[in-house]
Order: sequence, then structure tokens, then C-alpha cells
Amino acid sequence: MNKIEVCFSSALFNLFENKGKNVVIIDILRATSSICTAFMNDVNSITPVAGQDEAQKYKNEGWFLAAERNGIVLDFADIGNSPHYFSKELIGNKDIAYSTTNGTKAIKMSEGAENVLIGSFLNLDALSEWLKNDKKDTLIFCSGWKKHFNIEDALFAGALSQKLTENNMFSTECDSTMAAIDIWNIAKNDLKSYAKKISWNKRLNMPDVFDYCFNLNLTKKIPYFDGEKIKSY
Amino acid sequence: MNKIEVCFSSALFNLFENKGKNVVIIDILRATSSICTAFMNDVNSITPVAGQDEAQKYKNEGWFLAAERNGIVLDFADIGNSPHYFSKELIGNKDIAYSTTNGTKAIKMSEGAENVLIGSFLNLDALSEWLKNDKKDTLIFCSGWKKHFNIEDALFAGALSQKLTENNMFSTECDSTMAAIDIWNIAKNDLKSYAKKISWNKRLNMPDVFDYCFNLNLTKKIPYFDGEKIKSY
Repeated sequence: MNKIEVCFSSALFNLFENKGKNVVIIDILRATSSICTAFMNDVNSITPVAGQDEAQKYKNEGWFLAAERNGIVLDFADIGNSPHYFSKELIGNKDIAYSTTNGTKAIKMSEGAENVLIGSFLNLDALSEWLKNDKKDTLIFCSGWKKHFNIEDALFAGALSQKLTENNMFSTECDSTMAAIDIWNIAKNDLKSYAKKISWNKRLNMPDVFDYCFNLNLTKKIPYFDGEKIKSY
Repeated sequence: MNKIEVCFSSALFNLFENKGKNVVIIDILRATSSICTAFMNDVNSITPVAGQDEAQKYKNEGWFLAAERNGIVLDFADIGNSPHYFSKELIGNKDIAYSTTNGTKAIKMSEGAENVLIGSFLNLDALSEWLKNDKKDTLIFCSGWKKHFNIEDALFAGALSQKLTENNMFSTECDSTMAAIDIWNIAKNDLKSYAKKISWNKRLNMPDVFDYCFNLNLTKKIPYFDGEKIKSY
């Protein structure tokens, strides 16, 4: 039986072993929800870039760029980081660059894993099926917010862990995974109401974006990082 | 209104600010449960020591020493780390030294706090009343296991946070606190059964110790660290 582990923060990721595992990167608000939306809307590839300087460099080289700082679209960027920017009209069939501090850091930290996959509520069922078929130990990596535990990522980790442990295909001995499953089971019947209490709501006032990121199964696309770009199955 | 925060691991503690706050150290299995038991049984003071070398030094100086490695009492120690060793007969009215890796580390990391208090299920209500009377922002510091999140410490953090937020004396905007409260509310009606799933059970086979550490309110003592020794209110 394959194992599941959940890592609640990038500051804890060095406690886990990547090798031979499928690592699922989670940053529900907003990076991984936006990436899933982009592939749902037929983006060709996404190159993750880290800081503002690197983003500017990509823009100077002619890339279509998504970039924000503290919720405000950077003046040299084409679009911001929220999912609604990633429409078919704007990004369909394009190779784009996407600046995201937490997401990019998490992707780079996952080097050495068997596969680096991108998860969000928008592709929950498809991702769960893919992982069941691939039959490898799975490490769910919650990006967190400034290294802090956050509820939205933990909720998704719980949702995915719950699906994987059904039918006894996966098991866990990891306390984080068990806690995440419990939180998910409290929240699942009224996910959007439950999620409203989380601290993100107090940091960024974006109610439409927030609601959107808790939609289940809008796409069957499974973005993955190939070592350079994000593409999708 | 005073604030509550919960820190789930010593690897996350540097994200929080100590100053002006009451910090509650939690290491349910077993350090803080043992410390509460020791004061319940009239120990005079406990000097926390870190590694095996430091423990040996204290023993050589004639101290009564509690020390283990990987669940086995060190051959030069007087007693081990589990609560049942801390009986009135053995430690009543004594000044003892106690070697605990996680606990000692957490205590040292909390320097700069207004008060450093020791919490466990054994003194939950007394500690909660003390904190309500003292009216300061409170940071609940789960020691964790080898820096990993663990359910037993999170459960206690939730229990204490739940008590503090009753009557609107404390509030929280911290996702860890909200998650801990939810886990506590799932577990509270059958705490010992719930706790059985946690990973500690698989690491150390000590069913009696385990059950004991989930007893509620056996003592009104509130151990605190005075910068050198642990004493108690």
C-alpha cells in the first residue's frame, strides 16, 4: 500500500524525503488555482519565476507575464495572479511566465521527486485518480503563507488524502495527514462558509477570487513541472 | 481583547513574536505532562537540561536526574521521562534535573516572553483561568516531534484556545488556532479513542503512559520557567 504524507509549510519541507515520490504542490489562494485555470483555458505552458527582478527580466525578453506584489498587478506585467485573469482569450495557446513567491519556491524545493504535480480544488478528482493509477508514495506540500500553516491548503490536503485513502489504496501514519482529513470532513458539506473564517480573508479583500478557488472539479487537467516549465496531462 | 496564536512546530517558532506575550509550552507526550505531574507531587523545582552530555554533568554534580534516550532510561539517571516516575516518594520536595530534547529546546526558544508556562491536559482548566486573569496575548507553542506537527500537541492547543475564546475574552486571526480548535472539537467527547490514531503510538509502545497524559485536570499547579528553573504557581 502506498503512503501519504502532508507537509504544512515550506519551513517543514526539509523534514520530508522527495525521492521516488509524487509531490503535489498546493497554494489554493491563489497560485495553484490559477495554474489549473490556465490549463483549463488551454495555456500551452507556464514558466514559474520567483522575484520581481526575475519577472522584469522575463518581460524584457518579450514574455507574456502574470505578476503581482501584495495583491496589486505590477505595472510592467500583462495580468495579475488571480484565476480570472487566465481566460482563454488572454492566455489560450500561449507560453507564459508567472511570478509567484510561494508557488515557485515550492516547485524548486520539490526537485528530486518522481513527479511534481499541481493541485487545487478545481482538479481534485482528476488528480486523485491520476495518483491512484500511478501508485507511488505521495507527499502533499502545502505552500503556506509566509511559511505559516494555512487552513485553505490544509483543507485541500485533507480532501485529497481522504480520496486517496478510500478503497485502501493508500494509508498514512502521518499526524498532519490525519489532522488535514479531519478538518476537511468538518468543512466539506459547506466548504465556502467554513473557509470564510481563514486569515487570507483578512489580508486580501477579494471575495470573488476567494469563492472561485473553492469550486470543485472544474477541470480534468493535471499540471506538472517538467524541470523547467509547467505543462499538463 | 487579547489574541491567541498557535505555533505547530519548533521549526515555525521564529515566525512568531514572543515579546509581551504569555508563551505556553506544550509537549503532551511526555515532557509537559511529566512536569505537571512532578509539581502535583510537590517537586520543589525542575532544572531543564538538553542533551545527554549535559545530563551526565548534572548527575556528576549530585543532582537527582530524569533522563531517557529513545524511550530507555539512561544508565546514570535516577528515573525516566514518563509521568509515573514523578511520584511523591521519589521527587517530593526535591530540586531535580530533567533532560528533555524537545521541551528544553522550546523553553530556551521562548526567552523574551512575558511568562513561559507549562501546559498539559493535566492542568488545562487551571492554566486557562490563569491566562484569563493575566490578560495578555497568548502564544501556544507545540513542541512537536522532531520538528513535525503532531496531533497530541495540536489537540491541547485547541482545548486551551477553545477555553480562552469562550466569553469573548480572547480572539484569534490565526489559522493554526482555528484548525486546532476544530480538531479538539472532533476529539473532545472521546479524547482517548481519538488520540489512539496518532503516530506516537507507533513510535513508543507505552499504553499506560499514553492514557495517563490525556487525563483532564488532575492538578491546579501551573509550572513556569523563571529563566533558570521551572517552579510553579
